[in-house]
Amino acid sequence: MKIGVIASIAHRLPPRGYGPWEQIASTLTEGFVARGHEVTLFASADSETSARLHPTAPTGYEEDSRLDAKLWEALHNAAVFERASEFDLIANHFDFMPLTYSRLVSTPVVTTIHGFSSPQIVAAYRAYDDIAHYVAISDANRHPDLHYTATIHHGIDLSRFTFVPTPDDYLLFLGRIHPDKGTHLAVEVARRCGVPLVIAGIVQDEAYFREAVAPHVNGRDMSYVGPVGPEERDRLLGGARALLHLISFAEPFGLSVVEALATGTPVIATPLGSMPEILRDGVTGWLVADADQAVAAVSRLHLIDRSACRAEAVSRFDAERMVDAHLTVFERVLTQGGPESRA
Amino acid sequence: MKIGVIASIAHRLPPRGYGPWEQIASTLTEGFVARGHEVTLFASADSETSARLHPTAPTGYEEDSRLDAKLWEALHNAAVFERASEFDLIANHFDFMPLTYSRLVSTPVVTTIHGFSSPQIVAAYRAYDDIAHYVAISDANRHPDLHYTATIHHGIDLSRFTFVPTPDDYLLFLGRIHPDKGTHLAVEVARRCGVPLVIAGIVQDEAYFREAVAPHVNGRDMSYVGPVGPEERDRLLGGARALLHLISFAEPFGLSVVEALATGTPVIATPLGSMPEILRDGVTGWLVADADQAVAAVSRLHLIDRSACRAEAVSRFDAERMVDAHLTVFERVLTQGGPESRA
Repeated sequence: MKIGVIASIAHRLPPRGYGPWEQIASTLTEGFVARGHEVTLFASADSETSARLHPTAPTGYEEDSRLDAKLWEALHNAAVFERASEFDLIANHFDFMPLTYSRLVSTPVVTTIHGFSSPQIVAAYRAYDDIAHYVAISDANRHPDLHYTATIHHGIDLSRFTFVPTPDDYLLFLGRIHPDKGTHLAVEVARRCGVPLVIAGIVQDEAYFREAVAPHVNGRDMSYVGPVGPEERDRLLGGARALLHLISFAEPFGLSVVEALATGTPVIATPLGSMPEILRDGVTGWLVADADQAVAAVSRLHLIDRSACRAEAVSRFDAERMVDAHLTVFERVLTQGGPESRA
Repeated sequence: MKIGVIASIAHRLPPRGYGPWEQIASTLTEGFVARGHEVTLFASADSETSARLHPTAPTGYEEDSRLDAKLWEALHNAAVFERASEFDLIANHFDFMPLTYSRLVSTPVVTTIHGFSSPQIVAAYRAYDDIAHYVAISDANRHPDLHYTATIHHGIDLSRFTFVPTPDDYLLFLGRIHPDKGTHLAVEVARRCGVPLVIAGIVQDEAYFREAVAPHVNGRDMSYVGPVGPEERDRLLGGARALLHLISFAEPFGLSVVEALATGTPVIATPLGSMPEILRDGVTGWLVADADQAVAAVSRLHLIDRSACRAEAVSRFDAERMVDAHLTVFERVLTQGGPESRA
């Protein structure tokens, strides 16, 4: 199959640190190539891939504030659609804007919706619902107004996550430092349990970090280590007694949650968004309503079998499964075409 | 001719207050219709036109901060190009983004470049230079890397500007309140001359307004009247002894400058950007290097014949002339096509 992949150009592929959209697009691209498909990846020029790279922006616009995001996004999308006739199918991982070019070409476009940045942008997905092939990343993230071809949970390269049977004695927060992600709740829970907490991730909300997180950081039982690359991520996840994922929003998918499972680390999470789909309460972690329940869950971590966590990641969140599922969607779209291909 | 006009959706058409891009697109659209062409105007839904309106955004995104500008801009541009085959020609007045759809259709696109919002966006114009038909709004605004089909100065509906042979005793600043526009220099010059100053326009730079303008406003000889609509604009321009246009940037065109001339009011301006093309030093105003020269120019205003200012607007900046010039470009593009149509 000749596949054109539209990656986000917020970050390069694979991302050096933060970048879940870019991580998934990268994993899929490498998977398609490994299965013998002819893949052209549209991504920032500093991206690394075994596909043919069609570079557009010099680097991720989130990585260099001098870059005009609007300019590069438009040139990037145009580059894909100007070459549309070379591909059997275009796989879109860069939000709604590519849809607005999609009626002008005959190549089908499969759009993975990585989340809705605001309720308003649903209007764009609705406007192209008749010709689009949408892939949801969780059932929870399906919007009632849209028709989907499939839900495909994210998968990760399990070889990059080391199973750790016996962890160190700390809890972990890993993600954007933002109220949505409940960094302050992780701090509260760790303190009440008397267990050290490691906080890792980019600061997305400066004021929140300054007021709700930084005052508690002491470099002893409460440390902030900043954003972490793949190796450090694996090490931090594997060494943790649990990942604290006390989100307060309907998260479309939690990549760090399945990465934790891959290292054998259970997850204590709020049952919002995709969490009840990803986690099995009492098996791979605990779904908790509030800080009190999270504290209680920490005291019950000995009931969780870390090898069951790893097994869950292997059976449900392997990259191979995700790659196959996307290719199955592509084949269905190419064979059946049109809206009838939608489940 | 079947013409699709892409207007900016920052403001409705015609703009209620600020909106030079929208004003020109509106004037051209009405002119095309008046000459019997079949015109479809793509603009915000609250726009008024004698063309067929294809509404996209509910109103201008600068007029309602709840609107997602990126979303509406993409849907707006897509709407035009999805109907491209219905038009003989598309007239683009909405910056570079429509270009990124232009290779996907066979309808020629004539793009009027209303200015470069940053040096970076020249990259987009360069990327489409091979198939684009660019119209400059002044020779001064031509970018050396680009090929142009024509320079067409803006034109205004002269019937909406009243010639005033004898003005009142005040000077006028009319434009965005921004350091680029030299509001502070207008204040300085008016004070040194002992002539009242009326300041009108949107505040684009809040801090600048607060620090450099507001402290001087006293409601007596120094007043700020905010943004003004068409009637008030005509009245303020006509009543002024001179328009102070002491810009510090290479302005692509100064619509308020030719509007002033249409009321008979001369203009004192810095010789930057399009100013030397628009003004005739000593005939329709004075080109001055600094505040000292501007003060001297005010004392020489009696040397300017206000009817000569009006005559200049009539002969060079009439909307009819602009409409005809655009139609001439369209005909050249349709007859000759391709880059050879470029002068």
